[in-house]
Amino acid sequence: MNIRYYKQKSFSNYSTYANRGMSLEHDISLANEFYRINDIGIIYKKPTPITIAKVNYPSRKEAIIKEAYFKTPSTTDYNGIYKGKYLDFEAKETKKDKYFPLENIHEHQISHLKAINKHGGIGFIIVRFSSLYKTYLLTIDKLEYFLNNNKRKSIPLEYFEKEGFLIKEKYNPRLDYLEVIDKLYFDGGQNESTN
Amino acid sequence: MNIRYYKQKSFSNYSTYANRGMSLEHDISLANEFYRINDIGIIYKKPTPITIAKVNYPSRKEAIIKEAYFKTPSTTDYNGIYKGKYLDFEAKETKKDKYFPLENIHEHQISHLKAINKHGGIGFIIVRFSSLYKTYLLTIDKLEYFLNNNKRKSIPLEYFEKEGFLIKEKYNPRLDYLEVIDKLYFDGGQNESTN
Repeated sequence: MNIRYYKQKSFSNYSTYANRGMSLEHDISLANEFYRINDIGIIYKKPTPITIAKVNYPSRKEAIIKEAYFKTPSTTDYNGIYKGKYLDFEAKETKKDKYFPLENIHEHQISHLKAINKHGGIGFIIVRFSSLYKTYLLTIDKLEYFLNNNKRKSIPLEYFEKEGFLIKEKYNPRLDYLEVIDKLYFDGGQNESTN
Repeated sequence: MNIRYYKQKSFSNYSTYANRGMSLEHDISLANEFYRINDIGIIYKKPTPITIAKVNYPSRKEAIIKEAYFKTPSTTDYNGIYKGKYLDFEAKETKKDKYFPLENIHEHQISHLKAINKHGGIGFIIVRFSSLYKTYLLTIDKLEYFLNNNKRKSIPLEYFEKEGFLIKEKYNPRLDYLEVIDKLYFDGGQNESTN
């Protein structure tokens, strides 16, 4: 495969640990751009849902939103297609170092991911423990199993270590989460003929 | 299959032609809700992309966007999953009765649909000729063929009649576009075992 590397303008003096301060959202955005440019997969972040209350039109072509409110998202933040499969996930960061508080994920987002799974898509969450510099992928199956068997309001780090998959830090893309998807759903990436 | 009908609050005196004034977006929204409620498919409209310039926080829990601008969408309006397949489409209405002006669809939206197709998804556009009360589904393949073989800045109605698929008006959902997708990709809906 011919990989074209995405030009990381601000990363000229790149070192493995240099961008540890980068947000999870930024890392996923770079990964998605890398996947698109190299024709690996088409995955986007959905726009933030808002309710618009007031719009001004100072000129015919221009519109300025003067009043709007954030809405609770009805689905997850990311979706797209990879090797013919529908992909859908939510990504969250926590500063806690021993557990991930479940209040970070809405119940209807979990129901959405379950429905995706049922319809033949690949649903998961990506959770970053920012103080540990560790990012895990947890499939909706494993998340559901935890929720059905626990009354805790958080998922302990050990559960991610045991049932999730650590997304290894790479050069480019830094957060290659599709590598985990390959291992889980596409026979380690060896079976590429799913389209 | 057990079909639960979506309660159409405002449609108590429903007749086939009663809602002809309804917008395409509204019809698709009702269809998507019907598909979700009946567990047929999970398809959503993406939120309108905006750039937020100013946010006020009158209280700790409340945020009011005081200045924002509409962004050109980088993808299409709708995507989701149906019978294990990734679905992606753009929907447009025109008041013209003989042709559909191509300026209604951005070039990068067409590129996006082509990429979806290439990665094994189902990409298409839905076009409503509102003065004719007719709504067509045109696959990205057929759209691409037209663009490659024409220099016109619009697609004539005849092309939709010949190469597209008329979405028949039904009781519920009114605009059952997945019926066309069934005919095209799932052997008329008889092959249901694609998950």
